[in-house]
Amino acid sequence: MHAAGQVVLAVDVMGSDRGAVEVLEGIYCFFKHLRCCSIRIIAIGDREILDPIVNGRRFAKFRHLLTIFHASEVIAMDESPTKAIRQKKDASMVRAIELVQKGEADAVLSCGNTGALVSLGTIRLRPMTHLERPALGAVIPALDSQFVLLDVGANPSPTVRQLVQNALLGSHYCRTAMGLHVPRVGLLSIGTEEGKGNELVQGAHESLKALDGIIRYIGLIEGFQLFSGEVDVVICDGFVGNVLLKAIEGIACKLKIYLKKEMLKNFLRILGCFFLSRAIRNISGKLNTRQYGGAPLLGLSRPVFKAHGSSDRVAIEHAIMIAARLAGGEISHHLEMDIARAEEILTRSERI
Amino acid sequence: MHAAGQVVLAVDVMGSDRGAVEVLEGIYCFFKHLRCCSIRIIAIGDREILDPIVNGRRFAKFRHLLTIFHASEVIAMDESPTKAIRQKKDASMVRAIELVQKGEADAVLSCGNTGALVSLGTIRLRPMTHLERPALGAVIPALDSQFVLLDVGANPSPTVRQLVQNALLGSHYCRTAMGLHVPRVGLLSIGTEEGKGNELVQGAHESLKALDGIIRYIGLIEGFQLFSGEVDVVICDGFVGNVLLKAIEGIACKLKIYLKKEMLKNFLRILGCFFLSRAIRNISGKLNTRQYGGAPLLGLSRPVFKAHGSSDRVAIEHAIMIAARLAGGEISHHLEMDIARAEEILTRSERI
Repeated sequence: MHAAGQVVLAVDVMGSDRGAVEVLEGIYCFFKHLRCCSIRIIAIGDREILDPIVNGRRFAKFRHLLTIFHASEVIAMDESPTKAIRQKKDASMVRAIELVQKGEADAVLSCGNTGALVSLGTIRLRPMTHLERPALGAVIPALDSQFVLLDVGANPSPTVRQLVQNALLGSHYCRTAMGLHVPRVGLLSIGTEEGKGNELVQGAHESLKALDGIIRYIGLIEGFQLFSGEVDVVICDGFVGNVLLKAIEGIACKLKIYLKKEMLKNFLRILGCFFLSRAIRNISGKLNTRQYGGAPLLGLSRPVFKAHGSSDRVAIEHAIMIAARLAGGEISHHLEMDIARAEEILTRSERI
Repeated sequence: MHAAGQVVLAVDVMGSDRGAVEVLEGIYCFFKHLRCCSIRIIAIGDREILDPIVNGRRFAKFRHLLTIFHASEVIAMDESPTKAIRQKKDASMVRAIELVQKGEADAVLSCGNTGALVSLGTIRLRPMTHLERPALGAVIPALDSQFVLLDVGANPSPTVRQLVQNALLGSHYCRTAMGLHVPRVGLLSIGTEEGKGNELVQGAHESLKALDGIIRYIGLIEGFQLFSGEVDVVICDGFVGNVLLKAIEGIACKLKIYLKKEMLKNFLRILGCFFLSRAIRNISGKLNTRQYGGAPLLGLSRPVFKAHGSSDRVAIEHAIMIAARLAGGEISHHLEMDIARAEEILTRSERI
C-alpha cells in the first residue's frame, strides 16, 4: 500500500492519560526534528478531535506525511482487556493493529491500556515462528548507562523456554534499537552462586549457558548489579520485571520532589543552586524517565511499541523515533533465524 | 542464667566483611550511648583477636556488660550454608545460636552468611507454633518515610499460607521495633485490579482480606506505591523481595557517587555546594542505608537479627539497638496468639 522504502507508523492517539492533543503534539515535534520524508504516520482516533488540529496552520508543512484514520471508540486504561477487545470493535487501538495486520502500516505505537495492547498484538499480529509468547521490554536509565529489562508484565508466570526466548528478544532489541553490537545478557536472581534462586531461574540459567554464540550470556546477576553498568539486557519473569520497573519509576519521581524541596528551602540554598545550575540540569535529566518512557512488545511478526500512559510530547517523540527504527530494521528475519538456532541447540542438549 | 530484667544479646562478631574489630567498635558505640545497664552482650568469636581489644582501656568502663565466648571457626560469606553448618560445629554463628537455644541469651545478632543464619535459626530455634517458615524482613528508607519489606530472601517460593503469615510477622515487627500502632499492610503485585498478578498473589489477597481486625490490610499495591508513604509493611515472595532490596541499595549507592561527581566538577559547583551544605547533609543521610542495614529473621521462638555483611560501627550500633528492643518485648506471645487467630479464621472460611 505504501511507497517503497517508506516506513508507515500507525499511532493510536486516543489512549493517552494526557489526551489526544498531547500525542498529536508529539507527532508534530517528531516531524519538526525529522530531516527526511521516509516516515509517514497514520494517526488513529476521533476525527472530530483530530481534524481541527491537523488541518491547522502548524501541521501544514507535514500534512502530506500524516493521515487521519477515524475510530469512534477508545479502550480506557482501567478497562478489562479481554472485555474491551470483545466489545469495542472500533477502538483506536484495534484499528491501529488492524492497519499493521493488513500491511497498511509497518508498526504500531500506543499509549493505551497495556493489557489490551499485549492481547491484541498477540492475537492479531501473532508471535514469530518458534516463539511461544511475546515479551514487554523497558529501557531503564542507570545514570551513566542503561539496560533493557524484560519481561515487564506481558507474561507474569513464564516457562523456562519462554524466559530463554526472552533473552534472544532482548538481545536483538538492544542491537537494533540501541546500536549495541554484542549486548551482555544477565538473568536476574537472588544470588550468583549455582543453585540459588527459584526453579524457573535455575532451569533458564542452564539453558542460557548453552546459547553461547547466539547471545552473550554473562550469567546470574543480582539486584545491585542492575545499576553498575555491567549488563545491557536483564531477563526476569513478568511479575518481577513489572514490580521492579514501577519501583524504579517511583524512586526517581520521589527523589526528584525531595531534592527540589531540600534545595529550595531558603535563600542561601537557592543561591547555591544558581552555582550548581548545570549540575542540577544534568541530574534532573538523568532522573527523567520521559525519554525512556516506552516499552517495546517484542517477538511479534511486526513491531508494537507501548508508550507510557502519562507520556508527554517529548516522550511521544522519542517513542515514535524508536518505533520507526524498529519498523525500518530487518529485525524479524535475523531474530527468527536466531530463535530457530536456539531451539535446535536446546532440543539437542535436552535441557528443556 | 542471666539476672532478672536484664536482656542478654549474643553477638557473632566474626562473620562481618569489615572484620571483628569493626563489630567490636559497634558494640563500644552502643555501650557508650546507652544510658542503662539492662543490656548485656556476649561477643562470640576468636578469643585471640577479641581479648586484646576488649581488655584494653577503652572497654574498661563497660567490661562488666561484655563477655567473650570463644569460637574457633567462622562461616564465610560465600560458603554453602548446609555444608558449613554440617562441618563447622565451632563456628561463631553456631555458638551464638546455641547460647539462645540454651537460654543463656535472649537474641542473636550476626553480620555473617544469611543462608546459614536462616537455616541455623530455623533448625535450632524452631518457628513459633502454627508458623510454617520464618521470613527475613528489611526496613527500607523511602526518604520521608520507611517500610518493612518481607520476605527478602528466606523463602523464595512461599505458599499462600506462608505469605499470609508473613503479613502477621511484618505487622508485628512494625509495632514492636518501629512503634507503629496499626501498620498498613500491602501485598505487592503488578496491578491493583482484582485478578491481576500471579496465582500466589491472588490466593494471598483473598486470604488477607479475611484477616481484618488482626492486621490492617490495605490491599494490592504496585511498585510505584512503595515510596509514596502509603504503606508500612510490604508483603512479597522472597525472590521478588530480595531482587527489590538489592536493586534499591544499588540505586542509592550509584546515585550517591553520581551526585558527588556532578557537584564537585569545578570550582563554581563546589562554591554552590558550600551554600547547600545543610541540604547535602540531609540528602546524603537519606541515601544512607547504614541505619537500616539490618534484617530481622521473623517468626522464630527467639529474635534473630541479621546485619549487613558490610555494616560499619554505626550500622552495628543501630542493629544492636533494634535486636535489644526485640529481645526485650513481649513479641512472641502476642504474635503467637495472632497467628492462631488467623489460622482459625482462614480454616473456617476455607480460603486456604
